[in-house]
Amino acid sequence: VTAPALPTPLGDLLERSAADVAAAADAAGDGFGMAVATLDGDVHGVGEWERAFPIQSISKVFGLALAVAHDGPALWRRVGREPSGDPFNSLMQLERDAGVPRNPFVNAGAIVVTDVLLAATGDAAGAIRDLVREQSGNPGIDVDAAVVAAEAARGDRNAAIAHLISGYGNLTASVGVVLDHYDRACALRMSCRDLAVAATFLARHGVGRRGVRLLSRSDAKRVNAVMLTCGTYDAAGEFAYRVGLPGKSGVSGGLLAIVPGRCALCAWSPRLDAAGNSVAAVAALDAFTTLSGWSVF
Amino acid sequence: VTAPALPTPLGDLLERSAADVAAAADAAGDGFGMAVATLDGDVHGVGEWERAFPIQSISKVFGLALAVAHDGPALWRRVGREPSGDPFNSLMQLERDAGVPRNPFVNAGAIVVTDVLLAATGDAAGAIRDLVREQSGNPGIDVDAAVVAAEAARGDRNAAIAHLISGYGNLTASVGVVLDHYDRACALRMSCRDLAVAATFLARHGVGRRGVRLLSRSDAKRVNAVMLTCGTYDAAGEFAYRVGLPGKSGVSGGLLAIVPGRCALCAWSPRLDAAGNSVAAVAALDAFTTLSGWSVF
Amino acid sequence: VTAPALPTPLGDLLERSAADVAAAADAAGDGFGMAVATLDGDVHGVGEWERAFPIQSISKVFGLALAVAHDGPALWRRVGREPSGDPFNSLMQLERDAGVPRNPFVNAGAIVVTDVLLAATGDAAGAIRDLVREQSGNPGIDVDAAVVAAEAARGDRNAAIAHLISGYGNLTASVGVVLDHYDRACALRMSCRDLAVAATFLARHGVGRRGVRLLSRSDAKRVNAVMLTCGTYDAAGEFAYRVGLPGKSGVSGGLLAIVPGRCALCAWSPRLDAAGNSVAAVAALDAFTTLSGWSVF
Amino acid sequence: VTAPALPTPLGDLLERSAADVAAAADAAGDGFGMAVATLDGDVHGVGEWERAFPIQSISKVFGLALAVAHDGPALWRRVGREPSGDPFNSLMQLERDAGVPRNPFVNAGAIVVTDVLLAATGDAAGAIRDLVREQSGNPGIDVDAAVVAAEAARGDRNAAIAHLISGYGNLTASVGVVLDHYDRACALRMSCRDLAVAATFLARHGVGRRGVRLLSRSDAKRVNAVMLTCGTYDAAGEFAYRVGLPGKSGVSGGLLAIVPGRCALCAWSPRLDAAGNSVAAVAALDAFTTLSGWSVF
Repeated sequence: VTAPALPTPLGDLLERSAADVAAAADAAGDGFGMAVATLDGDVHGVGEWERAFPIQSISKVFGLALAVAHDGPALWRRVGREPSGDPFNSLMQLERDAGVPRNPFVNAGAIVVTDVLLAATGDAAGAIRDLVREQSGNPGIDVDAAVVAAEAARGDRNAAIAHLISGYGNLTASVGVVLDHYDRACALRMSCRDLAVAATFLARHGVGRRGVRLLSRSDAKRVNAVMLTCGTYDAAGEFAYRVGLPGKSGVSGGLLAIVPGRCALCAWSPRLDAAGNSVAAVAALDAFTTLSGWSVF
Repeated sequence: VTAPALPTPLGDLLERSAADVAAAADAAGDGFGMAVATLDGDVHGVGEWERAFPIQSISKVFGLALAVAHDGPALWRRVGREPSGDPFNSLMQLERDAGVPRNPFVNAGAIVVTDVLLAATGDAAGAIRDLVREQSGNPGIDVDAAVVAAEAARGDRNAAIAHLISGYGNLTASVGVVLDHYDRACALRMSCRDLAVAATFLARHGVGRRGVRLLSRSDAKRVNAVMLTCGTYDAAGEFAYRVGLPGKSGVSGGLLAIVPGRCALCAWSPRLDAAGNSVAAVAALDAFTTLSGWSVF
Repeated sequence: VTAPALPTPLGDLLERSAADVAAAADAAGDGFGMAVATLDGDVHGVGEWERAFPIQSISKVFGLALAVAHDGPALWRRVGREPSGDPFNSLMQLERDAGVPRNPFVNAGAIVVTDVLLAATGDAAGAIRDLVREQSGNPGIDVDAAVVAAEAARGDRNAAIAHLISGYGNLTASVGVVLDHYDRACALRMSCRDLAVAATFLARHGVGRRGVRLLSRSDAKRVNAVMLTCGTYDAAGEFAYRVGLPGKSGVSGGLLAIVPGRCALCAWSPRLDAAGNSVAAVAALDAFTTLSGWSVF
Repeated sequence: VTAPALPTPLGDLLERSAADVAAAADAAGDGFGMAVATLDGDVHGVGEWERAFPIQSISKVFGLALAVAHDGPALWRRVGREPSGDPFNSLMQLERDAGVPRNPFVNAGAIVVTDVLLAATGDAAGAIRDLVREQSGNPGIDVDAAVVAAEAARGDRNAAIAHLISGYGNLTASVGVVLDHYDRACALRMSCRDLAVAATFLARHGVGRRGVRLLSRSDAKRVNAVMLTCGTYDAAGEFAYRVGLPGKSGVSGGLLAIVPGRCALCAWSPRLDAAGNSVAAVAALDAFTTLSGWSVF
């Protein structure tokens, strides 16, 4: 069931993109992996592409997709979709805008998305887990309890954000319950392979595995638009400039990117730049779009 | 005057996109026009697509292209490329970041771009005028002196911005000279037709009229990326979400958009929304991408 | 044991100060009371000066005095003493200054003061209650449990503040415990009489009832200085301008003021202005300082 | 030249206050001077108390006094009187509050005060110069043209502020004229002696030399209140805490303070702390209030 990493043309392209980056990561003692999943179900990988890591903020993409599928207009009354000039965990913007997070990918926004999913499903973290299991074809994906415990222990900043949102009346469930689901979604362990395959529906204009439509064509486009403008923290402009693809990064070093109509990519390497994005993963995607010419621009 | 507005398939598409919007603008007593220019030189238009208006902030696209072509790395040391959470004419961000504008499309950024062009060419406004004349094939494009005078008369906000940048040492020429060139570039009068044709090089990956390369493929992609993330003031996320194309708006109601690899579009209608973008122009582009499926996502 | 409200000259002065204000409050259907306590133990009152109300933020004065008496230098490493340009419950400043509240009278600052008192005494709310009982000579002062419950129920904003401070490492005890003590100190029920008498040590340069020194002369001066610059929310400049005395207001309509070397005053009336200060209490103190000439300036 | 620096008790007090501070300033190679002027016309000095320096922001006190005397209510519609959480030359607050400076002692506020004086007198800088000449009894006080030229040369920040205010419609005269008067008032050269004597009317509840009333008792109190809450940049709370007097500092190292009902003091030493206040001048005033017990609290 694991995908063949055979030297097809796309596999070649992936290997050439990753070669220098992987060597540099290796020299620095960092791990590195990268995978690409095509629309017709092929998947190729290099390096530690099957090693699982907590997906952290990449979970926000799947949460957003579920919330948009459930009721987009209701969601967008409670969360904006503009890039933020402030850091991903800033409370300033929230105070300026009376509890409406600027977009669904800052922590505040993902907390509201979690609240929306809780109301819609009764189990926000479970709904996200089920989606990635189904779309990746890997039923073994699960929450890492140790990561959840660690998040909860140093969760003061998110608790502050959630209480502030709640104080403005933009939270339905209790702060504790929402944060628990938020933390568990972030603690899902997935590999580059799992993530690239699971996200293929965003490259396939909303159609998931076995041809089941998850999002309308418009909504798939819109999730990609939010990823491009808001997906890489306070460096979304830089990422669009260098890579030119919708992307979403996580603090554990993962970076998911979409080439609409072609493929989904995921790279991973733990060393982060000042904005919180993986140095090697950004470099690998930069190389990939340069070699392939596959940016959206 | 040269372009045939014949009912080709693309012309059809344009007319269908514009029909409802134009009717609504008409009912409201507003003007409306729209043009599309293809990579092979065709141009189609509807409504007042040949009526000239002061292009205002759309001039920032051409200024940026010239500055990037001259010396991108030097430019990006003096201007950022991240979307701004603040209004286009805000001084707050500038103070927070010690005189480095957040991107080239907020006024502060365009003022620094103008300073860069002044140092490079000796005549920033003239260089932009020559570029749009050459690329549009319309040698009659010129600065509207009355618009320049009006801008200068109510130019306190831009003077504040320019002095603040100068105080941080990020301006080479004098404030007065830079603002004069900035105002003159904004006061260039062009039609939807002129703008769509002149911007075709951004859809053609950097190659301008008669096959002359103006920007490297990478730099063309990058200008488009900056347009998508920063081109429509504080509503860039919304524009990416609805339209999904690199775009740049101006306060006189113009809106330029690029479909990479296919065409450049320009719509115009003077009524603005709260964010400063033309209501009808955004709606027409929304309809166009919905009908054509030509968003970048 | 209750103080005689006899027509002494100071009592006269009080009555004249309050007459118009009380009539206006009465006409508006609001309550009003005012008391003055002299250095030699006299106390005079008008209106509902013996009616108890939850002292809310006025408790911050007594908490600050205890914390300064315990260890001022340690306190000032964790809390600033500058006026804030932001509202009393803003999180922006806290984020800008990495968890160090701007002064002890914004909620964030009082939360840190509570944490300091908890570490010093094991019972922060109890220590404040004991101080006001002893200094007012009213052993019946106690926490209003219903007020505590109400505060806790709508305590999201303070929970956000406390978690943010805790996230920056500026809280020793747990958020829940600190907020419980904070809420209980705010819910102490005292009358204008109780408050004026209890605060007399600040007019007596640090010496409390029965001649026991509570604060050094310097520290008493300093607490008064903080009251003048920071005691009336975002209107401290306005209060200094109109009244010219160190003062501290609470959201229930109380307002405590100090005339160093002469007396302590407390006025109460529930209607608040936009800045959160009691309209009638400010007006009565304004009249009092105008009639008496007793401002500090 | 007239004032006897004889060892009266107040002269003694001054010398004891200044001794350690002057020695430290001397050891650091800095100059130091200090003067005190009593209500009955005595003046005492130590160190370089007769050395003239450009008074810089201390001029704002005299400008404010003139504007308040002219029409206080009109002034306060255009300038606030709250302390600012931002630096003295910040534009952020101005943008937040639509061009109304937060108080008359930040640069923005003093620029509006200058505009008010220009409209009232036709010569704002001249009016301030005449006031300090008359009140100090030193007809030789004048503007230092070299200082004006230097200010103008590096005046971008103030130009930005003035244009921003003008853009919001809160300036009557042209930016250039207002800034010229502002710069000239800052460039008045006065000694500690001149400043202490000239400011005595603020200690004398509004009554100037030869018994002429300059300000009503209320307005004198109010100017002192603004000095205490806003007079020492972003360290007004710290100054109130340490010194406890209305004070106003300047970037050239001067520091004026008022003991209402007793005297005016001025200290000078060029080395500044991070907030822009003279290290030695603050220390000398701290020592003076500690030795004398003459704080307002």
